[in-house]
Amino acid sequence: MAESAFLPELGTQVVVPVAAVVGIAFAVLQWVLVSKVKISPEPRRADGSSAGKSGAGASEYLIEEEEGLNEHNVVVKCAEIQNAISEGATSFLFTEYKYVGLFMGIFAVLIFLFLGSVESFSTKSQPCHYSKGKTCKPALANAIFSTIAFVLGAVTSLVSGFLGMKIATYANARTTLEARKGVGKAFITAFRSGAVMGFLLAASGLFVLYIAINLFGIYYGDDWEGLYEAITGYGLGGSSMALFGRVGGGIYTKAADVGADLVGKVERNIPEDDPRNPAVIADNVGDNVGDIAGMGSDLFGSYAESSCAALVVASISSFGINHEFTPMLYPLLISSVGIIACLITTLFATDFFEIKAVDEIEPALKKQLIISTAVMTVGIALVSWLGLPYTFTIYNFGVQKMVYNWQLFLCVAVGLWAGLVIGFVTEYYTSNAYSPVQDVADSCRTGAATNVIFGLALGYKSVIIPIFAIAFSIFLSFSLAAMYGVAVAALGMLSTIATGLAIDAYGPISDNAGGIAEMAGMSHRIRERTDALDAAGNTTAAIGKGFAIGSAALVSLALFGAFVSRAAISTVDVLSPKVFIGLIVGAMLPYWFSAMTMKSVGSAALKMVEEVRRQFNTIPGIMEGTTKPDYAMCVKISTDASIKEMIPPGALVMLTPLIVGILFGVETLSGVLAGALVSGVQIAISASNTGGAWDNAKKYIEAGASEHARTLGPKGSDPHKAAVIGDTIGDPLKDTSGPSLNILIKLMAVESLVFAPFFATHGGILFKWL
Amino acid sequence: MAESAFLPELGTQVVVPVAAVVGIAFAVLQWVLVSKVKISPEPRRADGSSAGKSGAGASEYLIEEEEGLNEHNVVVKCAEIQNAISEGATSFLFTEYKYVGLFMGIFAVLIFLFLGSVESFSTKSQPCHYSKGKTCKPALANAIFSTIAFVLGAVTSLVSGFLGMKIATYANARTTLEARKGVGKAFITAFRSGAVMGFLLAASGLFVLYIAINLFGIYYGDDWEGLYEAITGYGLGGSSMALFGRVGGGIYTKAADVGADLVGKVERNIPEDDPRNPAVIADNVGDNVGDIAGMGSDLFGSYAESSCAALVVASISSFGINHEFTPMLYPLLISSVGIIACLITTLFATDFFEIKAVDEIEPALKKQLIISTAVMTVGIALVSWLGLPYTFTIYNFGVQKMVYNWQLFLCVAVGLWAGLVIGFVTEYYTSNAYSPVQDVADSCRTGAATNVIFGLALGYKSVIIPIFAIAFSIFLSFSLAAMYGVAVAALGMLSTIATGLAIDAYGPISDNAGGIAEMAGMSHRIRERTDALDAAGNTTAAIGKGFAIGSAALVSLALFGAFVSRAAISTVDVLSPKVFIGLIVGAMLPYWFSAMTMKSVGSAALKMVEEVRRQFNTIPGIMEGTTKPDYAMCVKISTDASIKEMIPPGALVMLTPLIVGILFGVETLSGVLAGALVSGVQIAISASNTGGAWDNAKKYIEAGASEHARTLGPKGSDPHKAAVIGDTIGDPLKDTSGPSLNILIKLMAVESLVFAPFFATHGGILFKWL
Repeated sequence: MAESAFLPELGTQVVVPVAAVVGIAFAVLQWVLVSKVKISPEPRRADGSSAGKSGAGASEYLIEEEEGLNEHNVVVKCAEIQNAISEGATSFLFTEYKYVGLFMGIFAVLIFLFLGSVESFSTKSQPCHYSKGKTCKPALANAIFSTIAFVLGAVTSLVSGFLGMKIATYANARTTLEARKGVGKAFITAFRSGAVMGFLLAASGLFVLYIAINLFGIYYGDDWEGLYEAITGYGLGGSSMALFGRVGGGIYTKAADVGADLVGKVERNIPEDDPRNPAVIADNVGDNVGDIAGMGSDLFGSYAESSCAALVVASISSFGINHEFTPMLYPLLISSVGIIACLITTLFATDFFEIKAVDEIEPALKKQLIISTAVMTVGIALVSWLGLPYTFTIYNFGVQKMVYNWQLFLCVAVGLWAGLVIGFVTEYYTSNAYSPVQDVADSCRTGAATNVIFGLALGYKSVIIPIFAIAFSIFLSFSLAAMYGVAVAALGMLSTIATGLAIDAYGPISDNAGGIAEMAGMSHRIRERTDALDAAGNTTAAIGKGFAIGSAALVSLALFGAFVSRAAISTVDVLSPKVFIGLIVGAMLPYWFSAMTMKSVGSAALKMVEEVRRQFNTIPGIMEGTTKPDYAMCVKISTDASIKEMIPPGALVMLTPLIVGILFGVETLSGVLAGALVSGVQIAISASNTGGAWDNAKKYIEAGASEHARTLGPKGSDPHKAAVIGDTIGDPLKDTSGPSLNILIKLMAVESLVFAPFFATHGGILFKWL
Repeated sequence: MAESAFLPELGTQVVVPVAAVVGIAFAVLQWVLVSKVKISPEPRRADGSSAGKSGAGASEYLIEEEEGLNEHNVVVKCAEIQNAISEGATSFLFTEYKYVGLFMGIFAVLIFLFLGSVESFSTKSQPCHYSKGKTCKPALANAIFSTIAFVLGAVTSLVSGFLGMKIATYANARTTLEARKGVGKAFITAFRSGAVMGFLLAASGLFVLYIAINLFGIYYGDDWEGLYEAITGYGLGGSSMALFGRVGGGIYTKAADVGADLVGKVERNIPEDDPRNPAVIADNVGDNVGDIAGMGSDLFGSYAESSCAALVVASISSFGINHEFTPMLYPLLISSVGIIACLITTLFATDFFEIKAVDEIEPALKKQLIISTAVMTVGIALVSWLGLPYTFTIYNFGVQKMVYNWQLFLCVAVGLWAGLVIGFVTEYYTSNAYSPVQDVADSCRTGAATNVIFGLALGYKSVIIPIFAIAFSIFLSFSLAAMYGVAVAALGMLSTIATGLAIDAYGPISDNAGGIAEMAGMSHRIRERTDALDAAGNTTAAIGKGFAIGSAALVSLALFGAFVSRAAISTVDVLSPKVFIGLIVGAMLPYWFSAMTMKSVGSAALKMVEEVRRQFNTIPGIMEGTTKPDYAMCVKISTDASIKEMIPPGALVMLTPLIVGILFGVETLSGVLAGALVSGVQIAISASNTGGAWDNAKKYIEAGASEHARTLGPKGSDPHKAAVIGDTIGDPLKDTSGPSLNILIKLMAVESLVFAPFFATHGGILFKWL
């Protein structure tokens, strides 16, 4: 006898869209609040007077009072720079989307042809795969709807990334202007803007998925299995888009950053973000297309994939077979509650408390993580109690397994809390408040070589606890509820995505704000304030990457499990040669991919260096600041290089599952997926943390906040120079190759899942032929 | 009906020991030839006159004629320096052996207790594990003989490493003196000395194993299964010793090298190996204890383990069950033929051809690899035809598999040729004759940061083809003859170990020779000649590491297979949570281990830097060359640091299988082994090649042999400084953490195999308790 969930179908049909709409409305509200900071010259008087007012009323919480609030020129200049950055970013994204669009079109056709060919494009219904004796929709329908879902996922990802970039470039100059009034105001502006992106992305991802399920459901009716199989296309679309966003954006941002630093800081001895540097606009554009749009697409991809993995596994559980609507939408209910939990959490940062000093910034951001996790734990308990029957059965590679609802609660919760553990470990290894980064900074005393050795060792070491956390989550969730448990654990880790993204996007916005302050020639104090915001942002960016990779590990395992089920493999035996060669080659792929992306950054940076040098040498008056450099040329170089260079690594990731599946078949492919997963997760974590640690070791020396730090500084000292070298090496590691790796492992898994019916039917031709 | 091999038992009983004795005799002969170069001052006249003679007769093949052959002082000084190096190395090795001896003693007791406890120390015979219905020797006998074999393996490894070090320190000054006569003479001296080590190690390893099998056989009689199970202790002993040799020696050599370079080259601007540098003797000692003794122990370990893996798998094949002596000793026959093949090959380098120009050195070494591989292919064919029955059956995880002798030939040959492929790929990526290293050198133009980025990318890229080569060998040998095929493929790759080691040891000997020339104040030309020898040596060292890691991958897979058979696991299913968490944690271990060893090198180097700085600052007259620095203090610092620092990484490797096996059981342990294998092999290859490439990029700039190279130089230019930073970073990667990783993966596998009966009986208490 199958029990039912407390929450009726109608309730679910209300809760999910309402939560999505509330999330979107909250994002709009935050945007309205940010837009109150005026940067256009017309309302100069209003701005002046409002600034005067806030200046008077804010004496309780302003750290320092800054003169020049009414200066017309500064505002105009900020607006100009903001425009240049926004235009550069928009033009890059449009160029990128043009190429990616072409690729997506071709890939959509491939999906349709490959999946359609499974039953030779027959329009006849077929026997179901799991529910023996029933008939399911034809493979052709699966092909059509998978293709539609793929396009939907890609478009949602694209729009999310683009809007995130728009709001970031909208907010950066506003953060700069607010920084004149104090660090607290600037923090709130930057954080609210991050929240716009976070909520918009989480809510629209949920909304589109909900709509798609309901619309597809009209055709599929009772055939949940077919419906959710088609829906996995959504994850593939989101993730493919994320791949190009991450890789293209990552190459763009680091080529510009490394190129600008190598000539500007090292050769010409001019400060970071100096307007005399021709690559300075490209550098700031890079933050928006790489760290904002790229990161947004990436986390959207993770979210979409973990939802799809959970849905597809759920569809073959007892509630899938009994057509229970509410438990079938359990993954979406988790996300809905997540939006509400994050909404409450955000208020703690923007309304309930106020930042009064620089050293309160990092604790405030950390509190966001803790609060969201605590609130969400209650939310999960509620959803698991109301949205699931007390017991249900799960399909576990051929055997049925009974699961209690409290067990599923534990699965989601362990993922959520493992995320928090990973976050804190990442913080410990990348924040300059703790000994690991201070040791790395100290090693700069003996030069760049020891800095690099210590930094690499730090990254390797930082892998240990996250891997144990991931392993523990996997073991618990896998033991309790098989692959469904792993999938909802991933969803648990991502359930606070809105807060995670808000914290994440806050970093590059502050970074840009500092750049604008420098370029607009604002006073040193403003720059110090934005630097303080940015330093906290570096650590939170590393935490965000930690979440991204941790969830990617869980998601890809869940997708892997779904793929194995779908491809009708009963065991993935390491002792079979077919599987073992897959495993070892799969473990190699992250290295191949990293080699490509790092070399790409290197080559693109070299081109940038040449151009910047050329401008310094041939355009007279640049160094004196009398002539403007040709910013557009540098933007073009970064754009062209990143578009060109993103293709080979993209092709490697997208083609590997197809080639392996078609030539070697599903066993070898499952080995490749497992190998890439267990090897890639380590490189991704260590690369991100090594890069973050180098960056903050440099900032530690520059800030000189402690006795120890002052013995290493000041800027320009030998240890500082060594630290700058480490920082430059870390750039491609932490912003290009490292974070792209989690897309590699997820994307190969979801692609294999989507194409599983095709591989199972037509794959492995090489072994068949031998 | 079981067929028999052509070669009768008596033949095998003759061939194996004779080959071993011939190998040892050949080593002694080479040693006698080297010893003809006199370095004691007494035979000064003889030396002078013989030099005069050779000077006259050698005009055909000497590149340059050097004056000062008769200079008494130079010879005395060389002898002095040689003594200091030899004493330093001996004293370090004795200290190391003292600590390792203690550890080995404890571990031997553990082996006895754990294995004895399997049947509660009963002296009763037990039913056989594979040959159902028969009775085999009691577990207590297995415990006793495994312990003896363990001690034997450790002692053989220790003696091999120590003798290698002795001959190397015996040969270095002789190579320097010969370099006065020309590069060809110096090459032959260095190469012969390398050959002494290579043949001594290969032959004594074979000899001890042969003796042990025969002696143990007296007790075991027909029980091949028990005999070969006990013999695996030999592999464990050899490998444990290798672990400490590699890690301790690696930390020693790199602490001294990095410390000496950072102060001497970077801060004080004095050349490498300048006698004014207090760390210079320690640096040269390091080459001998790390690159010679460490490498020797490592390859001996690989050889012992692959033999043991092949033997233990063979013992459960049809010829094991039918007690056929010759095929049971097939692995030893392969090694015997290998010694003869290498002997022929060596003559090509020392007698058949002569080096007449600097650019003939690298081709001559490469030819060694090709010739040995070609000759050995014939040898394998012969042994497979004579030493194996035409068909036989193999136990393949529960099923019987029929194998033809020509199939086994293919297995050995594919391993042999895959080794050659790996060697050539390694050469391509680390020799400065090809574009990859030249690109890295070129990237020094924009500073150390781009050099590091390009170098890391090169290392990652260099993994691709070796992994495909390994995967192909595994697939072919696995498909043809299951785990026995993999084991003999590993043996095939190692069958030319004598030549491989000769080439390998040649490098550090040349390096030392250069150091002695510099310290003895010999002319610049001598240094150029030894530098040319050394540059070729860098590449061959990288090739040697490629072989070591490639064979380690195959060996550990074979050991893994033997472990799985012995632990009675039928499948290692990635889809089981117990296995998967093992897989992901296992893939993390190489990172943990690398973090430890790299940090160790860093810390030890920092101590060395402080000491060298202290001496420069407090001992007056060092920089002027009027006072001798305190070399002994630096030797002591390296010794103490490496002994202290080798314990934590050593403990990690040795304890992990025990802890996992006891707490989590054999399934999780098998996951850990597979994960460490597929992840460790990648890091090991990339670390070795990155380091080798940086080293040769630096040498490329220094040598200035091409138009392109000259635009980057000369020594002291900014690109050269950037290249030196890369070289320093590469030191711990290529000589400490990278090569230690192959011991990690082999050792954990062989340890698991030895303890398999214990884990199968008493392991997994955590899961049992849950």
